[in-house]
Amino acid sequence: MTPPSLDDFRTLARERLPAGVFDYIDGGACDEITSRANRRDLDGIRLLPLCLRDVADLDLRTSLLGHSFGFPVGFSPTAFHRLVHESGEVSAARVAKALDIPMIVSSMSSVAMEDVARDSGNEHLWFQTYIFKDRALTKELIQRAEGSGYKAIVLTVGCPVTGRRYRNVRNRFALPADVVAANFARRNVVVHDNPIHSVGADLDPALTWSDVEWLRGQTALPVVLKGIMNPLDVPPALDLEVAALILSNHGGRQLDTTESTIRMLPEIAAAVGKRTGLLIDSGFRRGTDVLKAIALGADGVLLGRPVMWALAAGGERGVVDAVGLLVEELRIAMRIAGCRSIGEIRKNGSAVVRV
Amino acid sequence: MTPPSLDDFRTLARERLPAGVFDYIDGGACDEITSRANRRDLDGIRLLPLCLRDVADLDLRTSLLGHSFGFPVGFSPTAFHRLVHESGEVSAARVAKALDIPMIVSSMSSVAMEDVARDSGNEHLWFQTYIFKDRALTKELIQRAEGSGYKAIVLTVGCPVTGRRYRNVRNRFALPADVVAANFARRNVVVHDNPIHSVGADLDPALTWSDVEWLRGQTALPVVLKGIMNPLDVPPALDLEVAALILSNHGGRQLDTTESTIRMLPEIAAAVGKRTGLLIDSGFRRGTDVLKAIALGADGVLLGRPVMWALAAGGERGVVDAVGLLVEELRIAMRIAGCRSIGEIRKNGSAVVRV
Amino acid sequence: MTPPSLDDFRTLARERLPAGVFDYIDGGACDEITSRANRRDLDGIRLLPLCLRDVADLDLRTSLLGHSFGFPVGFSPTAFHRLVHESGEVSAARVAKALDIPMIVSSMSSVAMEDVARDSGNEHLWFQTYIFKDRALTKELIQRAEGSGYKAIVLTVGCPVTGRRYRNVRNRFALPADVVAANFARRNVVVHDNPIHSVGADLDPALTWSDVEWLRGQTALPVVLKGIMNPLDVPPALDLEVAALILSNHGGRQLDTTESTIRMLPEIAAAVGKRTGLLIDSGFRRGTDVLKAIALGADGVLLGRPVMWALAAGGERGVVDAVGLLVEELRIAMRIAGCRSIGEIRKNGSAVVRV
Amino acid sequence: MTPPSLDDFRTLARERLPAGVFDYIDGGACDEITSRANRRDLDGIRLLPLCLRDVADLDLRTSLLGHSFGFPVGFSPTAFHRLVHESGEVSAARVAKALDIPMIVSSMSSVAMEDVARDSGNEHLWFQTYIFKDRALTKELIQRAEGSGYKAIVLTVGCPVTGRRYRNVRNRFALPADVVAANFARRNVVVHDNPIHSVGADLDPALTWSDVEWLRGQTALPVVLKGIMNPLDVPPALDLEVAALILSNHGGRQLDTTESTIRMLPEIAAAVGKRTGLLIDSGFRRGTDVLKAIALGADGVLLGRPVMWALAAGGERGVVDAVGLLVEELRIAMRIAGCRSIGEIRKNGSAVVRV
Ligand SMILES: Cc1cc2nc3c(=O)[nH]c(=O)nc-3n(C[C@H](O)[C@H](O)[C@H](O)COP(=O)(O)O)c2cc1C
Ligand SMILES: Cc1cc2nc3c(=O)[nH]c(=O)nc-3n(C[C@H](O)[C@H](O)[C@H](O)COP(=O)(O)O)c2cc1C
Ligand SMILES: Cc1cc2nc3c(=O)[nH]c(=O)nc-3n(C[C@H](O)[C@H](O)[C@H](O)COP(=O)(O)O)c2cc1C
Ligand SMILES: Cc1cc2nc3c(=O)[nH]c(=O)nc-3n(C[C@H](O)[C@H](O)[C@H](O)COP(=O)(O)O)c2cc1C
Repeated sequence: MTPPSLDDFRTLARERLPAGVFDYIDGGACDEITSRANRRDLDGIRLLPLCLRDVADLDLRTSLLGHSFGFPVGFSPTAFHRLVHESGEVSAARVAKALDIPMIVSSMSSVAMEDVARDSGNEHLWFQTYIFKDRALTKELIQRAEGSGYKAIVLTVGCPVTGRRYRNVRNRFALPADVVAANFARRNVVVHDNPIHSVGADLDPALTWSDVEWLRGQTALPVVLKGIMNPLDVPPALDLEVAALILSNHGGRQLDTTESTIRMLPEIAAAVGKRTGLLIDSGFRRGTDVLKAIALGADGVLLGRPVMWALAAGGERGVVDAVGLLVEELRIAMRIAGCRSIGEIRKNGSAVVRV
Repeated sequence: MTPPSLDDFRTLARERLPAGVFDYIDGGACDEITSRANRRDLDGIRLLPLCLRDVADLDLRTSLLGHSFGFPVGFSPTAFHRLVHESGEVSAARVAKALDIPMIVSSMSSVAMEDVARDSGNEHLWFQTYIFKDRALTKELIQRAEGSGYKAIVLTVGCPVTGRRYRNVRNRFALPADVVAANFARRNVVVHDNPIHSVGADLDPALTWSDVEWLRGQTALPVVLKGIMNPLDVPPALDLEVAALILSNHGGRQLDTTESTIRMLPEIAAAVGKRTGLLIDSGFRRGTDVLKAIALGADGVLLGRPVMWALAAGGERGVVDAVGLLVEELRIAMRIAGCRSIGEIRKNGSAVVRV
Repeated sequence: MTPPSLDDFRTLARERLPAGVFDYIDGGACDEITSRANRRDLDGIRLLPLCLRDVADLDLRTSLLGHSFGFPVGFSPTAFHRLVHESGEVSAARVAKALDIPMIVSSMSSVAMEDVARDSGNEHLWFQTYIFKDRALTKELIQRAEGSGYKAIVLTVGCPVTGRRYRNVRNRFALPADVVAANFARRNVVVHDNPIHSVGADLDPALTWSDVEWLRGQTALPVVLKGIMNPLDVPPALDLEVAALILSNHGGRQLDTTESTIRMLPEIAAAVGKRTGLLIDSGFRRGTDVLKAIALGADGVLLGRPVMWALAAGGERGVVDAVGLLVEELRIAMRIAGCRSIGEIRKNGSAVVRV
Repeated sequence: MTPPSLDDFRTLARERLPAGVFDYIDGGACDEITSRANRRDLDGIRLLPLCLRDVADLDLRTSLLGHSFGFPVGFSPTAFHRLVHESGEVSAARVAKALDIPMIVSSMSSVAMEDVARDSGNEHLWFQTYIFKDRALTKELIQRAEGSGYKAIVLTVGCPVTGRRYRNVRNRFALPADVVAANFARRNVVVHDNPIHSVGADLDPALTWSDVEWLRGQTALPVVLKGIMNPLDVPPALDLEVAALILSNHGGRQLDTTESTIRMLPEIAAAVGKRTGLLIDSGFRRGTDVLKAIALGADGVLLGRPVMWALAAGGERGVVDAVGLLVEELRIAMRIAGCRSIGEIRKNGSAVVRV
């Protein structure tokens, strides 16, 4: 039986994965207040369905970065898929292709980005990276992404250092020997609370907006910024004409007590206006969550942990099922709420969703 | 001993019913946030009793659809009463007659509507239906209701598809072989998370307000709309001159995180004004809940699950007792609050109930 | 060891009393939402101490009904003290005398009012009564109270019927044979959820303000109204020139989901102004609770259940200890908050207490 | 392994200390509502990180009382360190010196103030005292502090009497024979709920602002007031030109239901303006707590219980580790929030912290 909800995939993953791996995926920073707030704040938003609107035919197609996808749902970058399934990032990339949704491949993938692209046959992948202290390495990663057909560069910001995740510290979590940061020459060996430290490629805390400008100059691909939370950071991003912003608190994994993304959405959406794309992640699990995000101004929603859970629970099939049930929940929510398309959710937003 | 409160009937029902049947009745959509919110929001409204108002004589009579009933309490349509008691819908219909309160018989009744009317001798039943894809079937149901003496047609809206109830999915709930949708030729066989799928009569997601107009044209009976939640849906309903609206989120069984009905009541009541009747359901369990609903603008309150619990706990007698104790609680609440009649609750409403 | 807080007396009482008796005392109406709200709302009010105000000498004397008492704390009327201690109401009356605080003796006392007055030697007792259907009986009770030296008549209003207390129903609680309503000729025999039903003296639900006027005409004693909750009931009470009002929801024992008294206090105090006295009860357990009540406009605070707990835990000594620790907590609270007298609490009220 | 968070030090302390000692440290007044509110209100404040601000180099130096310290974190005065570690106050004083942070030595120290100063070699200690009834004793303590090189006198106000801590009462807590109030001639012998009673030096409840003026006249050292909570107490403090205020509810140990300090901070900071220094304590445990306090107007944050926990868990090393991890959390918080220095936290405050 397909698990009936994304949380059931989490339960399955908990049963199947070593505790340390489960916790690495599940954990948030410090007291995990933001992790919980992401869910609680979504649950707290109430809906007012509209009835009798001829919702026989739904149109879930969504345009992101100028490309039309099947649904307003995609995959956030998550590191080291081989922690939970031997096929690594290839499975999720295949599902993204099959379902026609965006997937952001992490620079910390456990399969090299070229192999992810080739083995999945997915020609619409986006590549996530950081600007490392070593700019040559950064540039090389981008060029490899371009070369292997990735369609966008997603720059994760707001991580000048990595968050404190005490579950990892308590578990003395370390990557198993056969799971490596496959895009990097020097690979993981170190035991650490955050695997990013293990690739010999240091994050650069000195980054400023001009480094984003530099990055934009290195690539013909559209550049997306992932990790915007403060409305003050929207104008400089718009000035740099980035292709989209991803409103994200990294699933509560970076700075604990950071505001939930859904609560910031109306204000961020107002600051963005129609000037660039706006995606959101952190805590999205239900069809109604997706409806709420779009009603409040997002173009689409990304999933982080659920992809890992689904992979752990059932590999490629698991991910198909997980996305399938989320989309099915979204269809039901749209029909009951009286919205036939992404555009109508947006138009009816303030009537259907009350914050 | 009569159980002292409606929740005790629930406890009895839980003891007596197979888990799958209990859960089918009890469950709400998805995470059951709306199911719980219905109760919590009612509990959260505080009362300010008025004293010394000569409350010796109470008048609970209530006028609904131009007919005078004994109390401002009635039965929401609930499917398949034979799931919990062999007499099926006849028992509740007898109680409704005896207590002089409205009962809405579900189109998904497990006893044919003609038999419910005849065997109960209740001449003031209302018949609930959907507009099915098959309009001929829809028309036929209405004509049979008219023919067997039903006094109103209650059209359930806001269910273009049925909600996701994960308890049913987990329990692989299916109707037992001897419980059928007795109004339909082809009856249930399918195992499904929602029995409505089993009658071979598909709900029509393409419905619009003009279909309500069509329905009104098919019958001389007053038409009531059940399932209004959004104030934007009030004006079109008023334009169609429906006889009453039922503010309902279907007990939280359709779209999870839908707002509680009691929180929407003031706004919906303001939109309705005196132009048509207004009933409410979803979560009403206490005499004080009824008082609050009337104070905030409803003409009466309907019960869903409690009818099933009471039937399971004690058949016809159980339902008499359940309504009896609710009415007794209402009398106490009216006396302590200083309101002698439904009209006085309404008049004193804003003084006695603070939202 | 003296129990360190009033709640410890509750724990002791729970250990010592039969469950049915403990529940009779402890229980509230229906779901006991108001019982809990009384405490939670008091706990939720935050204090802002003022420092360096020379609080060496405190003056806790309080004027109530023109008489000066030792502390702004007294005893609410509670029925049947012999349920918890053989000496019945005499013990509490003795303590009230010793500590120089007001006590309201219930008409449902288990020792006749004359005996309470005589055996305790307390010459400042107040007598609580209802207006019964039988006005002659009502008048007789008042005359007996006058005759035995009571100093005020406290009329309990807001109880045209008695609340539903489901713990009593579940426990099939009945008064033991040797505990009787000693002021009445026909005494308890009936098993009932509320012992007031057992004295053959029915409450009169037909009461209006003119009956209060009648009562005032029957006695030279000051008349106090206990049970006011709604600001709309203040003006008629002022018109009748009652000697004081007691803001009370009867400890949440009458109508569940009634507002907590502390939340109504500012508004009721504003309506009362300086025109008559204002006492409050329902949920007061801490010295800070008393400080808050006075800061928000009450002249004093009354205790219901704690008296019964203390009697059960240690008889007369127990009640002395219980009041003693509450007063000690109040002294500490006054000193830390920087208020030297009841008058200063009132004057500094809005600076020290924030609602 | 260093415990990963301050709360883990608490867990270690609970394991190692006798229950009575642990409770003496941990407990708050009465129901400990303020103790919990201190934490909950801090946790409830949400952050909005700013990104891409070149946070490579951080400057945590902080100026307090005209002296530059390494970090905006110091030690609140806590009595009787020898309860948890044989070296007593010397260890914390050494750590304060090593880390270049302020420490306030309690007048109730278990090592004489002269020995704390000499054995730690810390030349920047501050001395906390009360104004005792015995002014000669008070003066003598101040002179000894001056004489042994202390750099400020911290006068604890808002404790005209000591709070009720029921854990101590229940545990019949008494100081062990070998832990004494080492600054006093007559030392503890009495069993009491609050050890301050045991030194034969009574607190003076008659204190007024003019006594603070008197104290200021006794010493050339800067005078700091610890325990301000009410904005009305700020102007008289400013009039006396005290060197700094410490916004403190004494960790919820004095008057229960006192407001949390973080909630009062904006208002107190507004009243203080730039006219004097402002420190805060009560409940600070996380790097983000420190960031929030500074963003909302404090110059620095003090730790009470964590020092005791760390001492119990690992002596001097424990305290180094505890402060180290808090500072490390603060660094991470500053980097992710985009603030490079204490000044920038202050400047960006209202953008990064939302109350
Ligand atoms: C196991 C795991 C690994 C992650 N790795 C990355 C990463 O390499 N790069 C990145 O930008 N975000 C990473 N994230 C954050 C996700 O992209 C995403 O923002 C977050 O998971 C969304 O919240 P959700 O998990 O609640 O859906 C990771 C998250 C998880 C759970
Ligand atoms: C077991 C069950 C069956 C139901 N069947 C129907 C139905 O056939 N048609 C309908 O309009 N509503 C149906 N409802 C919804 C009820 O009419 C009503 O809106 C809801 O139960 C009210 O909430 P309450 O159960 O909290 O009182 C059903 C509800 C339950 C619990
Ligand atoms: C056991 C018990 C008996 C009571 N009997 C009476 C009564 O006879 N008359 C009356 O006016 N109130 C009665 N009350 C209500 C109290 O006077 C008072 O309003 C209430 O107990 C205050 O709340 P508290 O118990 O939380 O302090 C009774 C309360 C209790 C607990
Ligand atoms: C065990 C202990 C002893 C204390 N002793 C004193 C003291 O002697 N003088 C004083 O002003 N405050 C004293 N305090 C209060 C602290 O200075 C400080 O205000 C409080 O602990 C801060 O809250 P926190 O413990 O939550 O960090 C003491 C606190 C504790 C926990």
